[in-house]
Amino acid sequence: MSEESADNGATSPAAPRPTVGRGEKVRAAVLTAALAELADVGYAALTMDGVAHRAGVHKTTVYRRWKDRDGLILDALTGRIAGDIPIPDTGTVDGDLRALARGLAAWLDSPAGAAVLTVMLSDAVRAPGVAELRAGIFADRLRRAEPVVVRAVGRGELPPGTDPAEVIKNLAAPLYFRALITGEPVDDHAADRAARAVLAAARHGGLAGPAEA
Amino acid sequence: MSEESADNGATSPAAPRPTVGRGEKVRAAVLTAALAELADVGYAALTMDGVAHRAGVHKTTVYRRWKDRDGLILDALTGRIAGDIPIPDTGTVDGDLRALARGLAAWLDSPAGAAVLTVMLSDAVRAPGVAELRAGIFADRLRRAEPVVVRAVGRGELPPGTDPAEVIKNLAAPLYFRALITGEPVDDHAADRAARAVLAAARHGGLAGPAEA
Repeated sequence: MSEESADNGATSPAAPRPTVGRGEKVRAAVLTAALAELADVGYAALTMDGVAHRAGVHKTTVYRRWKDRDGLILDALTGRIAGDIPIPDTGTVDGDLRALARGLAAWLDSPAGAAVLTVMLSDAVRAPGVAELRAGIFADRLRRAEPVVVRAVGRGELPPGTDPAEVIKNLAAPLYFRALITGEPVDDHAADRAARAVLAAARHGGLAGPAEA
Repeated sequence: MSEESADNGATSPAAPRPTVGRGEKVRAAVLTAALAELADVGYAALTMDGVAHRAGVHKTTVYRRWKDRDGLILDALTGRIAGDIPIPDTGTVDGDLRALARGLAAWLDSPAGAAVLTVMLSDAVRAPGVAELRAGIFADRLRRAEPVVVRAVGRGELPPGTDPAEVIKNLAAPLYFRALITGEPVDDHAADRAARAVLAAARHGGLAGPAEA
């Protein structure tokens, strides 16, 4: 089986969990290869075959698991970002928003984050699919992060009617804005300011849903 | 004088002001040509000679007025954006922030705005100068828009210590975020939501300067 080559790291300290089966390892190897390929050749030039070759698996292994290259890239990027920016549950909305913003800031400032942004935005003109990909990645982030706001409303820290998606978007926006437009540092300080601003807005009804607008 | 060719439109309805001298018209023609050239060939491939040729002026005319191509491009873009997004003075902070956000949203959603964003971000990888250019453009916007916040603090609508730059950045960020990341509509509705959020944050100290942080 050509997938054997992806199992070489089975005894390495990086993959110690006994519950991870071969299929999961192959999947992880392909996703890792997709990220490396993306960084090397860019979104437009990435092919399923190229990813399979880099992962050391047969190309049918890739085609069996992913319908097309956009689906593969979306899985690779959302998985990577989810691992890089954990969703906090500190017990307070202040702690959660701060931790979320700091995680995002650290990611945007990291080589991994910068590489993703560069690929996503630099290829935007030539590759129409990249817009859907970008939206898909952010939709995945929203799904994961919204419980932070739902919990805060449940605890009475934010007013009922607060729109979870608006809170998360307004938390992320100033950090992306620094990274993409002004070039200012994207660090803990910037994250704390973003969290403070969004918290003040949310507490005073500035991020209520459309019905409350 | 080779600049004569730029004066062909002197009697057209588009340039009726008698106070605009020849030098100003040549300058405007070169800046317009720079924008067209930018849209056609992109940031990296734009040359002073190409702009001069398109404007119908001798290249020494361009070199005499602008030190280098980045200076020319910065002038062209900031001038264009300043014309496209006027700075409001409605008498209230609510009216001003809403008008400013709506102006930015309309611009981001226009072919001109989309073209600028595409050029600025798509060439970012290959052309190092583009980052400084982007920062320079936004610095110009801040200089123009900050009086909106200063006036609001003066009228007592926002607390003393409110950071004008933070307010303007937090107003713009969610709109850029929609345009660049989520792909959601960038319209009056989005603008009004951005204004509402930033106003709630600013009124409750969420956008105070570093000393108040």
